Order: sequence, then C-alpha cells, then structure tokens
Amino acid sequence: MSVRLAKRTQGISPFYVMELLRRAKQLEAQGKDVIHMEIGEPDFATPQTIVEAGIRQLKTGEVKYTPAAGLPELREKIAEFYQTRYSVMVDKKRIFVTPGASGAFLLALGASLNPAEELLMADPCYPCNSNFVKLFDGKARTVPVDATSRYQLTAARIKQHWTKATKGALIASPSNPTGTVIASDQLKQAIHTVNELGGCFYSDEIYHGLVYGENATTALAFSDNVFVINSFSKYFGMTGWRVGWLIVPEEFIDATEKLAQNIFIATATHSQYAALAAFDEDTLAELERRRTEFEARRDFLYEALLRLGFEIPIKPDGAFYIYANCSKFTADSYQFALDLLEAEGVAITPGKDFGTNEANHYIRFAYTTSIDRMAIAMQRLEKFINKG
Amino acid sequence: MSVRLAKRTQGISPFYVMELLRRAKQLEAQGKDVIHMEIGEPDFATPQTIVEAGIRQLKTGEVKYTPAAGLPELREKIAEFYQTRYSVMVDKKRIFVTPGASGAFLLALGASLNPAEELLMADPCYPCNSNFVKLFDGKARTVPVDATSRYQLTAARIKQHWTKATKGALIASPSNPTGTVIASDQLKQAIHTVNELGGCFYSDEIYHGLVYGENATTALAFSDNVFVINSFSKYFGMTGWRVGWLIVPEEFIDATEKLAQNIFIATATHSQYAALAAFDEDTLAELERRRTEFEARRDFLYEALLRLGFEIPIKPDGAFYIYANCSKFTADSYQFALDLLEAEGVAITPGKDFGTNEANHYIRFAYTTSIDRMAIAMQRLEKFINKG
Ligand SMILES: Cc1ncc(COP(=O)(O)O)c(C=O)c1O
Ligand SMILES: Cc1ncc(COP(=O)(O)O)c(C=O)c1O
Repeated sequence: MSVRLAKRTQGISPFYVMELLRRAKQLEAQGKDVIHMEIGEPDFATPQTIVEAGIRQLKTGEVKYTPAAGLPELREKIAEFYQTRYSVMVDKKRIFVTPGASGAFLLALGASLNPAEELLMADPCYPCNSNFVKLFDGKARTVPVDATSRYQLTAARIKQHWTKATKGALIASPSNPTGTVIASDQLKQAIHTVNELGGCFYSDEIYHGLVYGENATTALAFSDNVFVINSFSKYFGMTGWRVGWLIVPEEFIDATEKLAQNIFIATATHSQYAALAAFDEDTLAELERRRTEFEARRDFLYEALLRLGFEIPIKPDGAFYIYANCSKFTADSYQFALDLLEAEGVAITPGKDFGTNEANHYIRFAYTTSIDRMAIAMQRLEKFINKG
Repeated sequence: MSVRLAKRTQGISPFYVMELLRRAKQLEAQGKDVIHMEIGEPDFATPQTIVEAGIRQLKTGEVKYTPAAGLPELREKIAEFYQTRYSVMVDKKRIFVTPGASGAFLLALGASLNPAEELLMADPCYPCNSNFVKLFDGKARTVPVDATSRYQLTAARIKQHWTKATKGALIASPSNPTGTVIASDQLKQAIHTVNELGGCFYSDEIYHGLVYGENATTALAFSDNVFVINSFSKYFGMTGWRVGWLIVPEEFIDATEKLAQNIFIATATHSQYAALAAFDEDTLAELERRRTEFEARRDFLYEALLRLGFEIPIKPDGAFYIYANCSKFTADSYQFALDLLEAEGVAITPGKDFGTNEANHYIRFAYTTSIDRMAIAMQRLEKFINKG
C-alpha cells in the first residue's frame, strides 16, 4: 500500500457484487441476456408527480444553493409525514435534508463518532454501515444474528457486546439484506437499553413504506433521543435524485448544522423541490400500487426459491430482498453467484458483501425486476442447480 | 458540550456570515431593501442549454443510481475539456464526478488524510478547507499570507512550515476570498516542493474560468501527482445542482472509488446529465458573456472601493470577490459588517470567516449582483462611513 493513502482506506471493503456487475456488462455487450436480481433499487421510474415537480423547478433556472439543513418547506412536510403516518411529533429543527440516506449517515456519524469508538450492528447488514464507521476511524462491532431474532440486534445482545469503547448501536428495519422487520417491542427495548447505557441509537428506516405486513414503527415513537436515517430513494423511487433526511437528538442540532454547511453546502435543489411532491396524495396512491406489486413479487420469489431447495428461515416482511441459504448447493456462495452468472445470465449478490456471519452460505436475491423476468430466472436457476 | 458529541465538532467553526444572513432575512421581512454582496454564487440562472439537458433526462423518469465514479460520458467530457482548454491529457480513470467541489474535498481528504496529520493552507482561505481537515481529525496548519505572494502559499513557505506531521498543501487559485491567481511558475514550484517532500498536493480550481486576465493554469500541467478539485458550481452556474469533480493521482484511484461507493453511492443523475451540456459551444459562449460581465463588475467595484478609502493591495484577477482592508474605518470588521447591514441594508462577509490573519481588518465583497445594485450599495456604504 502506498504510504500516502489514508490508513482507513485499507479497512474499507469494496463491493464484491461490482465484480459481478462488470462481468454482467461484458456478457450483455456480447449479446447475452442477463436477468438482474442483484440491484438494490426499484425498477419503477420515479413517480410522474415527483418528476413534474422537479421539472417545474428546473424551468425557473433558479437552481441555487438552499439552506444547509434543507428547504424549510420540505423539512415541514417531513415533519407532517411523521404526524400523519406514525402519529409522532418531530420538531422540524431536528430534521436535516441530506444527499440520500448516505448523506444522513455521514452527518450522524460525523457528529457523534470519535476515532476508536465502536458501533454495534448486525451481521449481516448493509455493507456501507461499517465503512462509514471506518471513514471516521471508528470500529464496526458486528454481532452475528440469525432467524431467532429476525436477523436483528436485540437489547440483550447490545448489553452483552457493550464495552467502554461502544458509542452506540445501529438497527436497520426492514433490514438489507434479510428484509426482516424488528418487532415493535424489541425496537423499544433496544432503544431504551442504549439510552440507559448513555450511547447513541441510530435507526435506518430507509425501507419503511416497503413493508408487506403490519406497518413498521419508527424509532421516534419510543424516544426523541435517537438518530433516524431515511431517504426518498427506495419507497419513493428517487434513488438517482440523491435526497434523504436525518433526524437528530436535540443536542446534536448545532453540530449537525455545522457539518452540513461544511460537507455538503446543501442537498441538490431540484431534488428537494421534487421531493416536495413525494407526500402528495396522488404520489402516495401510486407508491401504494407499487408496494402491492413488490409484495406479489416477494410471494412469487419466496415460493419459487423454497421449491428449488433454498432455505429461507424467515419470510421477509419488507424491502425488496430475500436472503437465501444456498448451502444445499454450494459451500461458496460467491463462486455460486459467479458461476450462475456465467452459465445462465442471472445476477445475484453474494453473502460476503454483507458480513462474515455464514456469508458463504447465503446469497441475496433482489426482486427489483418483474415476475415474468423472475420466472425465467427461476427456470435458469433450476437448470444451473440440476447441472451442478 | 454533550459528552456524546464527537470531539471534532468542537473544532469546526460555523460561518459568521450566517448571523448576518439571518438578520438580513428579518430586515427583508420588515420590508427593508437589502443588497446582498455576501453571496458566494453567481446571480445568473443556470444556462438554458444545461437546464434543458437536465429536463430531458428527467422526462425519461429513469433517474437511477449512476456508477459511483460518475457517468462514463461525463468523465470522458471532462477529460476532453482538459485537453481543449489546458492541452493536458488526463486518464479518465483518474476522474471522479462528485457532489460539488465539496464532495471532491471529502473524497480527496478521506482517501489521504490520517488523524493528526496536518494540511498546509493559506490564511485567509475558504472556511470549509480547515473544517474538512477536522472532519477527518487532522490539523489545518494555516500559513498567514499577504499581497507579496498574491495571498498564495509559496514553495518557500511550504518548506518552512513542513514537519513530520504534514500530509500536504492545498492551494486555491483564484482564491476565495482574495480573488488572486497564483503565478504559473509559483504553482509549479509549490507542486514540485510538495512532491519532493513526499506529500500530497491539492489544487482547488473551482474558480478557473472566472479569470479576467491570463487564463489560470491547472496543477495537472505540472504533475500527474496532484489532487485537482473542481466543480460545475461557479463558472458553469450550477451551484444548486451539486455536481463537481475530483482528479486523483493514479495510486489513489481504487481507494477513491471505494470511498465514493460507500459515502455517496453516486452523484445526482439528472445533474450529471445536465452537466454533459456544460461543455457545449453554446453554453461556453454564454458563460464567456457572463465572464465579461463579471469582469466589468470587478472593475466597477474595485474603483468604487478604492475611492471610498478601502485598501485593496492587489487587484483581484478572478472569482467574484474583493477582499478589502477596512482598517481606515474600523478595528472590528465583523462589527462593521453587522452595523452596515443594520444601518444601510448592505450585506458583506466579515474577514473572520476566512481565518485569523488580520481578519478584523478585512471584509469580503462579492460582486454577484448587478452594477446598478452595487452602485446603490456604494452610495449607502459612503453614507455609512461618513456617519461613522
Ligand atoms: C439499508 C440501506 N441504508 C441506506 C442506503 C443508502 O441509500 P440512499 O443513499 O440512496 O438513500 C441503502 C441503499 O441501498 C440501504 O440499502
Ligand atoms: C474555494 C471554494 N472551493 C470549493 C467550494 C465548494 O463549492 P461546490 O461544492 O458548490 O462545488 C466553494 C464554494 O463556495 C469555494 O468557494
């Protein structure tokens, strides 16, 4: 390693799925059909109402910096959304508009995490979590989780792994990659435990809205002393717009504002104006239709994978992922993913992108493609398995 | 301070000008006319060609994540721009599209700066520079500069302040707040000095293009072993779109890519498509007209301020700022700015936003408003001074 590289860059892992993506592109360039079940974004276009709001803003030509914390109207609308959707009051001073949930993580950890401090998180989890921690020279303490806790951290596990170096705990529900939602009382207990320990609780709620059973509960229902990370990317279908939000505990408002001014100046203006339309009735009606479609896809894929012999210890309740145990077919899920792509043109994400806990036995399927396409993918997968 | 706040947040300064902005808003709400000469963004709307390219992309509805390093077409166009404007060849693998120059700083320092390492920079300089360094728990070593070096770091100063803890040196040319351009041979010497010392050289070229004499030279003309930070914000009139770029030395490509994937996922898609039009002939012709207008404003403001008794040791060559010595009127430029706003409704930025080097004697005027408005501002300023 070059002596000039920051040491933190050594610990930051690249995404293994990128290797697969590169190969998928090559195969497609050769004219081969690839079914993409590795992609973590909705295949639906951004709702028309949102697009139109963005275009209206662009037509003014006045695409100037907004305040660092975001357009006041948008912060207001986000506050209203908490009231109507969750019956929770949030002071809009605590709400920061950010460049996606990614920007929200950057502010939350930048404002709270000191070098060498540790953050507890589930293994498996979203790969960027631990890398954000390393960006600030902290340590990601991953806690192996399994079906018994719905692949979520529990209050007991948090207590068990808490040390003097622990800054806090991060829970993402629904989870990427498992799609599982934490039970409401479990979430409450986890938050209270962290609060009692004097730490910071971070709740990644980016897949809220994309839930197929009971609605997910926001961490804000149980405490104001939490960081909530959310985004317009997934449920609202705005990945490429780069707009999300962060809610911070009162005592972090000033520090978060300073960081936002310095790191971002502001979030993209047209994206913020477009997001103003995200809570419109028409938009929400369209998003509900999409949610229903995602639910049908989940049911289809879940049944199909079980039938093929994959193990799925819990039927996922949300997001657009199924994390399936493939140990019946392979002891190396990465190789399995590479071979499947090569032989049959189906792209999936290897478990090792999400941690080390049994990662070689798991793969993640994203149902961000139509049932018709998934049906073909399942035929190809069946053929691949039978040959193997 | 709350024990949960990250220690780094203590060292990160807020912008004093925000206080003035808040007060300006109040005054405007009371119906008072405020002339804004504190604002660091062009008053011109984004060029129509760029807006239209953005709208075209939005109309497709396909606003998905792009590759982390940016749209390949945009990286290609940026590479071409270096060839046509500067006759410099840049491998497009070294080019990363970022959320503004701000995002470029984040990647560049995240990839290179370790905690406790020091970065040399001029005082006065852009306030975010030192705060980015503190974000990664490094130390900003500000070096007082004056008119004798055109308010720029020199090779001699770099050598003089270099210690074992020094990671590198940052030069911004044209400079914010002084508007001064570093002489080409001085830039070359500074780069060679840093290279010989084994450090990293960071060149903030965001105000390139907005230069009223000889064109500014890119650091890339002298070495491939430099970080170049640039943006579509200022010259291209795209502040609110949040799109810029970073060029890294070869050995930093992989680390920068990993960081971009994790921190941003990607830069806003529609902004990147819009930026594709930034290098079109029509766009550049419009931008040249604006540059001429900025030049006329600079000349007007420069003469006017001298006439009123401000000292401006060097006529600025670029950007849209004049950094004026007001010690003839006050020993506290912040109070001067507050009082001027209160009495006459003219907003300017106090020197202490840019450092501590004689900051109390300086104020920054931005000529991001029309000559007509500036003429009124000068009358008000004259009245204020005569009363004082
Ligand atoms: C769990 C989780 N959190 C956060 C993000 C970041 O998304 P964005 O920055 O687009 O809002 C993602 C994206 O895949 C995710 O899966
Ligand atoms: C010297 C300098 N560098 C960088 C920036 C960041 O600009 P942006 O992130 O909009 O590209 C600014 C903005 O004012 C600046 O003045």
